[in-house]
Amino acid sequence: MKLIDALNWRYAAKRMNGNKVPQEKIENILEATRLSASSMGLQPYTILVVENEEVKKKLQPAAYNQPQIVEGSHLLVFAAWNDVTEAHVDEYLKDIAETRGVTLDSLAGFRASLMSIVTGRTTEQKHEWAARQAYIAFGTAITAAAVEQVDATPMEGFNPDAVDELLNLKAQGLRSVIILALGFRDAEKDFLASAKKVRRHKDRLIQKVA
Amino acid sequence: MKLIDALNWRYAAKRMNGNKVPQEKIENILEATRLSASSMGLQPYTILVVENEEVKKKLQPAAYNQPQIVEGSHLLVFAAWNDVTEAHVDEYLKDIAETRGVTLDSLAGFRASLMSIVTGRTTEQKHEWAARQAYIAFGTAITAAAVEQVDATPMEGFNPDAVDELLNLKAQGLRSVIILALGFRDAEKDFLASAKKVRRHKDRLIQKVA
Repeated sequence: MKLIDALNWRYAAKRMNGNKVPQEKIENILEATRLSASSMGLQPYTILVVENEEVKKKLQPAAYNQPQIVEGSHLLVFAAWNDVTEAHVDEYLKDIAETRGVTLDSLAGFRASLMSIVTGRTTEQKHEWAARQAYIAFGTAITAAAVEQVDATPMEGFNPDAVDELLNLKAQGLRSVIILALGFRDAEKDFLASAKKVRRHKDRLIQKVA
Repeated sequence: MKLIDALNWRYAAKRMNGNKVPQEKIENILEATRLSASSMGLQPYTILVVENEEVKKKLQPAAYNQPQIVEGSHLLVFAAWNDVTEAHVDEYLKDIAETRGVTLDSLAGFRASLMSIVTGRTTEQKHEWAARQAYIAFGTAITAAAVEQVDATPMEGFNPDAVDELLNLKAQGLRSVIILALGFRDAEKDFLASAKKVRRHKDRLIQKVA
C-alpha cells in the first residue's frame, strides 16, 4: 500500500475489536521504530511492549479507562530517559566502534559533541530532549503501523506516574511520555471509523518561503 | 520500496550534492506530513518550505554553517505554535464541522476537551506540547522522504531566535523547533554515506513486559 493511502486510511481508533495483531506485523512496526531517526543517533528512550491481558487491565485506570487499552492487541509505551549521562554516551560509542570496526579514539570529536548535551543542559532539559526524540520514533511507529494496516491510537491522556509505577520505569531511569495502542478498529462501535478525515488545509499548514 | 528497506537506506547525510528534488517528491513528502497523527488532530505547527537560494544562504550562519543548508534542495522548517488559543480551537472546530457536515453544537464535548488544554496549561507547557506534536510530524516527514528515496538530514543544531527572525516567525506566533534538509547525498564527500548503520540493539531498546 502506498504511504499516502496508508496515512489516509489511518485514524485514531476509539474502539478496537480485541483481535490479535500477527507477530510479524508487530516485529515490522518495532523494527521500523528501531530504525527511526534520532538526534546524533542516541535514541534516548525505551519502548515497552505490553501484550499481557492482566497488565493491560492494570494499566487501564491509569489511562482514564480508555477502552483501547484492553481492546487493543499490544501497547507500545514510549519511555524517555530521565537524564542523559556519560554512561549512556559511552555505551553508544562502544556500539559505534563495534559496528563500524573503528577505535574509540577515532570517535573523540563525536564524543565531545555528545558530552556537550550531557554537561550543558539541566536534567529536565535533557529529559525534554529525550522525550522529543521519542516522539520522532513515535511518528515513525504510527506510520509503520499504517503501512502494515494495523490500527494505532496515540495516547497522551494517561497518568505517567501511575504507568511508571506499574511498569517499574522509575527504577530504570525512565518516564513514560506517550502510548500507542495497536489493534484493529471496531467499525461498528466507533462512529469515527467512517468519519471524513480532517486535516489542516495545505495553504494554512504549509508556507512556501519566497 | 519496502518501509524497512527505505529506513535502512536512510541516514543523516552530512554532505549533499546540490541536485534539486523533483517537485512531485516534495509534494508527496509534504502531503504525508500533513496527514501525520497529532494529538486531538490539532496540528499545532506550521511547516515552512525554503527553496530560495538567497534565503538558504542567509539561514546558514544561523545553523552553525552546516553545509546541507545550502547543498540541500529544500529545507522544511518545523515551527510550533508559541501558544494554543481559543481562536486556534475554533478554527479547527470550524474545519471539522465543514468537512464532516456536522453542527458546531454537536462538537461541544470535543470543544471542552480541547479547551482544557488551552486553559489548563501555561503558555510554555502549551508550546512544549505543540513542539512534541511537530516532532511526530517530523518523524512522518523523514519516513516519507526515505520512501521517496530523498535524503533528509534532521537538524536541531541552529539558533532558533535567528531563524525565527529571518523567517518572520515571531510575528506569526511561531517558534522554529527542528529543520529537515531534503536533497541528495554526496557519497564522495560524506564518509558516513558508506558507514554501517548503528542503532541500539533490539534487546536494549525494546522491552517486552511479561
